[in-house]
Amino acid sequence: MATTDKASPRDRLLDAAADLFYRDGVSIGVEALCRTAGVSKRSMYQLFDSKDEVLAASLERRLPGYEARLIPGPQDAGTPRERILYVFERLAKASVEPGYRGCPYLAALVELKDPQHAASRVAQGAKERLKDVFGEQARLGGASDPELLARRLMLVFDGASARSGAGVETLDDGLATATAATLLDAAGVS
Amino acid sequence: MATTDKASPRDRLLDAAADLFYRDGVSIGVEALCRTAGVSKRSMYQLFDSKDEVLAASLERRLPGYEARLIPGPQDAGTPRERILYVFERLAKASVEPGYRGCPYLAALVELKDPQHAASRVAQGAKERLKDVFGEQARLGGASDPELLARRLMLVFDGASARSGAGVETLDDGLATATAATLLDAAGVS
Repeated sequence: MATTDKASPRDRLLDAAADLFYRDGVSIGVEALCRTAGVSKRSMYQLFDSKDEVLAASLERRLPGYEARLIPGPQDAGTPRERILYVFERLAKASVEPGYRGCPYLAALVELKDPQHAASRVAQGAKERLKDVFGEQARLGGASDPELLARRLMLVFDGASARSGAGVETLDDGLATATAATLLDAAGVS
Repeated sequence: MATTDKASPRDRLLDAAADLFYRDGVSIGVEALCRTAGVSKRSMYQLFDSKDEVLAASLERRLPGYEARLIPGPQDAGTPRERILYVFERLAKASVEPGYRGCPYLAALVELKDPQHAASRVAQGAKERLKDVFGEQARLGGASDPELLARRLMLVFDGASARSGAGVETLDDGLATATAATLLDAAGVS
């Protein structure tokens, strides 16, 4: 995300953290973070207690945009089945963009390896919300077991985002969407 | 994996690297690695060109054991369908062991974010081999499109290992196995 000189030091730090974390992983240093943000370390520590807190806040700041790109809004038409498959179509579309490295929230959980980390808490919430979206649409679509279907769809979503982000799979032939459709068929969501 | 004083410095380094990498992630330092292995940095650099090379060799060294735990051998009976589901049952079993953090090869790919990294190459090979096992059994089981079924099963496998490793899902109720079974049903592998 482009930052401008007019952005506050706080916003510049959060944008830089989100970009570097996503691109290079959790081992990014405070030096690189502050240099990229154009903010002194002193200023950073006036705004945040730790790098961990910057990471958590950066993931939180990106969440509304992430969800808006992935999840159909109230204005989007479609049956429950279509609304679920929409998420997988958007994932496939995102996966071919330059610099795509998979779902940032799953990556944070895999990298931090600490469910208690402040950034892991944000990521857990993001994963839970997407599962809830699936569960709600599964219920509206008459799934035999909406909660189970939502959990199954999350396996496919996270497997697809991790594999395509890691470059060992491509989703542009509709792989993940078709796999999700098979699970919807089996659960009676037509 | 327990190491003994009788293990060579090379093996002690590789075991320590595999353990630390899996537990703490790619940002483990050379200092911590050598301290845990009980090997001097000088010795490490006599054996390996870089930490990256140690990581790659440690993932390679663990691969036969990883595959032996996960993939049915020639001595294991079972139909192609059973042999595929066996992998998901073993995954579920592994996922409840203390210290489980998901598939180490997927984690390496997610963390390194560099398909050209020596350790990523090893991980790509591990992922490819498991997909080939699925594909071969899918073919033997008469799947309509064995390669497509194998790719779908890998989405479920990697999603399940990542989510359970990250602590946002539990597999001990048979979630991943049942999801795989649904995909086998749809592909005509009964």
